[in-house]
Amino acid sequence: MPRFRLTIEFDGRPFMGWQRQSHGPSVQQAIERAATRITGETAPVHAAGRTDAGVHALGMVAHVELARDITPFKLMEALNWHLRPDPIAVIACETVADDWHARFSCIGRAYLYRIVNRRAPLTLEAGRAWRIAAPLDADAMHDAAQALVGLHDFTTFRSVACQSASPVKTLDRLAVRRDGDAVLVEAAARSFLHHQVRSMVGCLALVGQGRWSRADLLEALEARDRQALGLNAPPDGLYFVTARYD
Amino acid sequence: MPRFRLTIEFDGRPFMGWQRQSHGPSVQQAIERAATRITGETAPVHAAGRTDAGVHALGMVAHVELARDITPFKLMEALNWHLRPDPIAVIACETVADDWHARFSCIGRAYLYRIVNRRAPLTLEAGRAWRIAAPLDADAMHDAAQALVGLHDFTTFRSVACQSASPVKTLDRLAVRRDGDAVLVEAAARSFLHHQVRSMVGCLALVGQGRWSRADLLEALEARDRQALGLNAPPDGLYFVTARYD
Repeated sequence: MPRFRLTIEFDGRPFMGWQRQSHGPSVQQAIERAATRITGETAPVHAAGRTDAGVHALGMVAHVELARDITPFKLMEALNWHLRPDPIAVIACETVADDWHARFSCIGRAYLYRIVNRRAPLTLEAGRAWRIAAPLDADAMHDAAQALVGLHDFTTFRSVACQSASPVKTLDRLAVRRDGDAVLVEAAARSFLHHQVRSMVGCLALVGQGRWSRADLLEALEARDRQALGLNAPPDGLYFVTARYD
Repeated sequence: MPRFRLTIEFDGRPFMGWQRQSHGPSVQQAIERAATRITGETAPVHAAGRTDAGVHALGMVAHVELARDITPFKLMEALNWHLRPDPIAVIACETVADDWHARFSCIGRAYLYRIVNRRAPLTLEAGRAWRIAAPLDADAMHDAAQALVGLHDFTTFRSVACQSASPVKTLDRLAVRRDGDAVLVEAAARSFLHHQVRSMVGCLALVGQGRWSRADLLEALEARDRQALGLNAPPDGLYFVTARYD
C-alpha cells in the first residue's frame, strides 16, 4: 500500500487541536474524513506533532497509507477539494517508504510564536498573534532565552497534562527578534513537551516587560515545578512551522 | 473644536466598505457610532479614501472634529474600546489644524495587493489574499506594469460606478515583486479611480500567466473602454496602506 507524506497548513481557530477529540472538531478528523471520501477507506493520519486548540500550522507533516492507487498530486487536489470549507490545506504531497513515519522518523520540530507589541487591539491579526500592550525589550528576551537552550529538565514549562515519559529535553534554539511592532520567537528542538513553547514565551514576555530578569527565568527553570511558571502564552500566536527528517 | 487625525487598521471582510451604507455595516458607521458613545455628539468621520466591500486597511487616515475636550491618547483608547468586537482599530491619533482634511489635504495614497501563487486553497490567508493557482511570472508583471505608470486616461481600469470627474490620473508607481509564494503589487498615486488598483492587478495577473503580453495591456489602456478590461481582481487581496500629507 502506498504511503503518502502530507505537508499541511491550517488555521487552528475552529479546531480543538490536531488530535481527534470526542468533544469537537479536530484537524486530524477533518483530514481522515476527506481521505475516506476519496478512497472509501478508513485510514489513520499520523502527524509529526500534536497542536493545541487555536494553534496554527504553516507546515505540519503527516502521513497516511491508502490502498487505492492514486498519484500524490491527485491525492493533494482531492484532499483539498474535500477539506473545503475547513481552513486546512495540503500544500505538498509525496510518496514515502513503507517504514517512514511522520512522528517517529521526525528528528526536529520548529515553532514560531508571533507577538504584536502595540496598544491597539488586533484586527487582521486577531486570533493569529498575541497582542501585548506594554513595550517589550526583544533583546532582553533573546538574551534571557539563551538560559533555556540546551539539555534541561523542563518541568516548569510543561503542562500538568503532558504525557511525555520524561521532562528532560534538549532545546536547540530559542531566538527572539523584533520586526516593526512584531516580536517573533523561533523555537527548535528534536521534540517539545506539552505547552512548552507557550510556557517559555509567556515567561519571556515577563522578561520583555522588565517584570522578570534573566535570573528569574533561570530560577523558574531550576525550580522544576509548574507552580514556578510566570505565565502561559495564549495559543493564538503559535505556529507549527516545520518537521525535519533524515 | 479640536480636530483629530486617526490612523485606522481594519479587516474589511465584515463590511460593505468604508462608506456608510443603508444596506449593511460600514467602517465609517462603526467609528462614528463609537465616537458618539464617547462624547454624545454626532460627528462625521472623513477618510482619505473610500474602500470597497472586503478591502482591508493597514493605515487608513481619517479625521473627526469633537466638541469634547479629550486627549488624543484617551480618544484612541476609548474608540478602540467602543469599536469592539468589530475588527477595526485606531492605531494612532493626534490633533491637527482646523483646516486639515483627511481627504482634501491628502497628496498621495498607497495600496498593496497580495496574491498567493499556489495550487492549495488559502487557510490562514483566506479573505486576505487572492490565490492564483497558475504560475505567475512576477518579472513580466512588473515590466508590463510600467506601461501604466504616468499620466493616462484610465477609463479601462475604472468601474462604471466611478464618480470621479475625470478618468485621467497620474500613476506614480506600480511595482510587482515575488516573495516566496506571494506576489506583491504596490501602487501609489495622488488619487485612484474606483476599482483602479483591482482592475490593474487583474490584468497584470493575465500577463503573469502569459495570457496577455505587455502589448495587450497597453492596448487595453489605449482602448479607454471598460469592455477592454481583462479581469477585475477580487477585493480580498487589497490593502489601503498609507495616505501622504504635506
